[in-house]
Amino acid sequence: MRGLLVGRFQPFHLGHLAIVSEIRAAHPTEPLLLGIGSAQISYTPENPFTASERMEMILLALEEAGLGGTIPVPLLDIDRHALWVPYVASLLPRFERVYTSNPLTRTLFEASGYEVVDVPWTNRAEWEGTRIRRSLATGTDWRGAVPPAVGRYLESLGAPARLRLLGEAPRPPGGGSGPLP
Amino acid sequence: MRGLLVGRFQPFHLGHLAIVSEIRAAHPTEPLLLGIGSAQISYTPENPFTASERMEMILLALEEAGLGGTIPVPLLDIDRHALWVPYVASLLPRFERVYTSNPLTRTLFEASGYEVVDVPWTNRAEWEGTRIRRSLATGTDWRGAVPPAVGRYLESLGAPARLRLLGEAPRPPGGGSGPLP
Amino acid sequence: MRGLLVGRFQPFHLGHLAIVSEIRAAHPTEPLLLGIGSAQISYTPENPFTASERMEMILLALEEAGLGGTIPVPLLDIDRHALWVPYVASLLPRFERVYTSNPLTRTLFEASGYEVVDVPWTNRAEWEGTRIRRSLATGTDWRGAVPPAVGRYLESLGAPARLRLLGEAPRPPGGGSGPLP
Amino acid sequence: MRGLLVGRFQPFHLGHLAIVSEIRAAHPTEPLLLGIGSAQISYTPENPFTASERMEMILLALEEAGLGGTIPVPLLDIDRHALWVPYVASLLPRFERVYTSNPLTRTLFEASGYEVVDVPWTNRAEWEGTRIRRSLATGTDWRGAVPPAVGRYLESLGAPARLRLLGEAPRPPGGGSGPLP
Amino acid sequence: MRGLLVGRFQPFHLGHLAIVSEIRAAHPTEPLLLGIGSAQISYTPENPFTASERMEMILLALEEAGLGGTIPVPLLDIDRHALWVPYVASLLPRFERVYTSNPLTRTLFEASGYEVVDVPWTNRAEWEGTRIRRSLATGTDWRGAVPPAVGRYLESLGAPARLRLLGEAPRPPGGGSGPLP
Amino acid sequence: MRGLLVGRFQPFHLGHLAIVSEIRAAHPTEPLLLGIGSAQISYTPENPFTASERMEMILLALEEAGLGGTIPVPLLDIDRHALWVPYVASLLPRFERVYTSNPLTRTLFEASGYEVVDVPWTNRAEWEGTRIRRSLATGTDWRGAVPPAVGRYLESLGAPARLRLLGEAPRPPGGGSGPLP
Repeated sequence: MRGLLVGRFQPFHLGHLAIVSEIRAAHPTEPLLLGIGSAQISYTPENPFTASERMEMILLALEEAGLGGTIPVPLLDIDRHALWVPYVASLLPRFERVYTSNPLTRTLFEASGYEVVDVPWTNRAEWEGTRIRRSLATGTDWRGAVPPAVGRYLESLGAPARLRLLGEAPRPPGGGSGPLP
Repeated sequence: MRGLLVGRFQPFHLGHLAIVSEIRAAHPTEPLLLGIGSAQISYTPENPFTASERMEMILLALEEAGLGGTIPVPLLDIDRHALWVPYVASLLPRFERVYTSNPLTRTLFEASGYEVVDVPWTNRAEWEGTRIRRSLATGTDWRGAVPPAVGRYLESLGAPARLRLLGEAPRPPGGGSGPLP
Repeated sequence: MRGLLVGRFQPFHLGHLAIVSEIRAAHPTEPLLLGIGSAQISYTPENPFTASERMEMILLALEEAGLGGTIPVPLLDIDRHALWVPYVASLLPRFERVYTSNPLTRTLFEASGYEVVDVPWTNRAEWEGTRIRRSLATGTDWRGAVPPAVGRYLESLGAPARLRLLGEAPRPPGGGSGPLP
Repeated sequence: MRGLLVGRFQPFHLGHLAIVSEIRAAHPTEPLLLGIGSAQISYTPENPFTASERMEMILLALEEAGLGGTIPVPLLDIDRHALWVPYVASLLPRFERVYTSNPLTRTLFEASGYEVVDVPWTNRAEWEGTRIRRSLATGTDWRGAVPPAVGRYLESLGAPARLRLLGEAPRPPGGGSGPLP
Repeated sequence: MRGLLVGRFQPFHLGHLAIVSEIRAAHPTEPLLLGIGSAQISYTPENPFTASERMEMILLALEEAGLGGTIPVPLLDIDRHALWVPYVASLLPRFERVYTSNPLTRTLFEASGYEVVDVPWTNRAEWEGTRIRRSLATGTDWRGAVPPAVGRYLESLGAPARLRLLGEAPRPPGGGSGPLP
Repeated sequence: MRGLLVGRFQPFHLGHLAIVSEIRAAHPTEPLLLGIGSAQISYTPENPFTASERMEMILLALEEAGLGGTIPVPLLDIDRHALWVPYVASLLPRFERVYTSNPLTRTLFEASGYEVVDVPWTNRAEWEGTRIRRSLATGTDWRGAVPPAVGRYLESLGAPARLRLLGEAPRPPGGGSGPLP
């Protein structure tokens, strides 16, 4: 039996790590798939990091925490809710249990016969993606909300400068096409 | 000669039925194509129902009303206004007359040489998609705005619960990908 | 050596012409590529004109101004920032220098090793796309912000009526699909 | 309960008509969906007719034969076998029974829980798509293999000349892009 | 008035140059659009060069020949014959005359009301794409079939080695995905 | 430092396992990414298994062999050779070394600055995908060419029957659309 946890991981933070840790402790012999949603989106205020960078964060954080038994997989969007569950099932190895706190995700997977388990967030006031992205952009403290290895990696990427730039710049048309509307 | 009426039919309501009925009465020997727009979108607050469910509603309502001579066809979006008319024409059997009250739709079809006729809405204050979706979500009366057969079908789908859920849930990233931003 | 200037050119106005003129004067032997971004979008309030119409405006304006040495190319969006630079490079003839005032465009091209030069806007208060589109829609003066040949062309297209219509009409679902939400 | 029969209908011939007739006779109260596969392909030797033209043929043939109770629907390809059944189910109104003589189609639908019934071909030696397309191209008799109304329609399209042209012409690159390889 | 000549230009050779030269001489005041078909395909035996490289060849050859008045534009495939003409028309500036020797291209453009003119090939036995690609792969003489500037450019790309490699290598699955079938 | 090995793994056989084993032994501290190419294709004679099934095979085989340190990732095709390397790099965590025996894959990665290492096949006469798929279809021995766990899994899938069916059935049009050409 395997489980699936889907997120965007923009970035991978201590809230994610706590959930993975808890699930692994509860089911030590069941591999956990980590689906990296919206894998094709990057360099936007809501999705600043590429799938490659998010894979990197996850691998760094799990190694640092000594957590094995997870399988991270990037998932490109298909933008069709009615096909999303069979699409995911066609790419990932078989899984039976889905962890989510989103009611639509719950509905779609339950309608396809999966067991759905509520995700127990920890310290949600501070370990939360939107808040961390805002902190990166504004320069207030964000290091305390991510695993140390992720913190070092984000520094090496110049993440604070990237978030600042994405917050200020008008969205260029055309997937980055430019400046001259 | 055939006519075309394009809508999203989210859901198919008494306003749609009145229009179809009026067109059929005015042109009893001319089949009417019903193009179901944005067929690939579902499970969003503005587009809660799949194309399959919308096809079902249309078939139920027309049978209940004893209205024949219509041909419902799902139309996937192509998101290119400049190609939309030839795209539709490449999928549907030949039609000459388009019913619409949207000025852009009128412009695009007229530019391609089609006859465009204004759609005469009836009781627009109550028979209107946005209003009906809101009523479904809030639990205020919506049964009076849809044909009885559509009402029963929407109940069987659990439509009120679905609309409530879609209104409350944050849009999951990745076409339904999940809960962990 | 060649340069690249990317814009949406909705429409091509005097600000664009001034930039092209200045770049050509500074580098008279270097051809300048004009990438027409979001080429697939048209008939929206922000992107009213087709790529075909924008190509036409550019050719008319450059001929009127006696400006040679430019190569206009429509660029369809791919909506993936992380692939946008190699995508553009796979379609355009080799270029080394990119003109932009958008910080994200700068970041993406610099990360791929291109020289990036800031675009010197002229008379930005009046020669600016959003403002010109609004003037077209409201009937206030817009002729003074575009080259004369573009002005005549926009009149021949019925551009003021089109902008007015796009501002008023609800966006039809389905890439132009219609009137019956 | 409804049935589904999927074909490309290139063109719709007497074999198709016999099958539809037989299914309708066996289940007179059950509507039959006619899925028009590969709807986006046309002007190739194997797929000479557009979805629009195939819809037209089906409507003409069924009206001529006095066969009601069918619902023709164009189906664009998605080119992913593993998602094909849920894709079709998301577009068509609910159906429970699938008619097919293709073993893969049988396998895919059975794996999703549908009842699959073998299609009883009639006079397969003459009423067969490949053979009819070849006859159209070579000028040997094809009228005897299609319903009279389809025959007249194919003549009005200039179908024999089109098939001859498609057989002779090298496939233009780029979906019709041209002559200069 | 403008003309359109569509080709894949794999590579741009003396046959292409002769055609362009002849059209320009016949209509010296009419710009000629050069549509580069299948722009997204490269590194295959039939389509060895990227759109970028083909743009480069065209610019080099036309400059060398002193031929002005042409506008080269890359055209990504859409793989739908029934939409190809409106697709091309939505991207290119207005044109009225199409040069082609492909009967399907002729049919599609004529059906949309364009004037179509037959392309007068010169020395077709030697100046022909398939033959030149084979010569590049096998090391027999190809320099005599392309303009001198294109010849130098192809050498600088290592074109003979690329063609040899593409002829020998099994097509990697997945758009270049690899070696382990 | 990490390595990348891309294959289709249709199915994952002893040749793949030997390569992974050898690479892991040579670089025990470097994780190895396994890119599963053409992830979206399944149920064809050349690509019989879904990405999900191939992920399953890889996990089973590596666990059975006690091989850790690998990261399998499904890769959807983009069908553009010129963008394939940046596409892969945008999805996978950073890697520096690519293992391949395909000369085009080598060329594309080397052009982007990657170190490319030749893959040392073992017992290529028997451990080879095409040969194994043929054996599955014809019922000759294939168990000896795959890891025992993969053999049991293939039996549980009914792989021999699937390959036989795919070899016999005409390819249904429309990504599985059906039986009635």
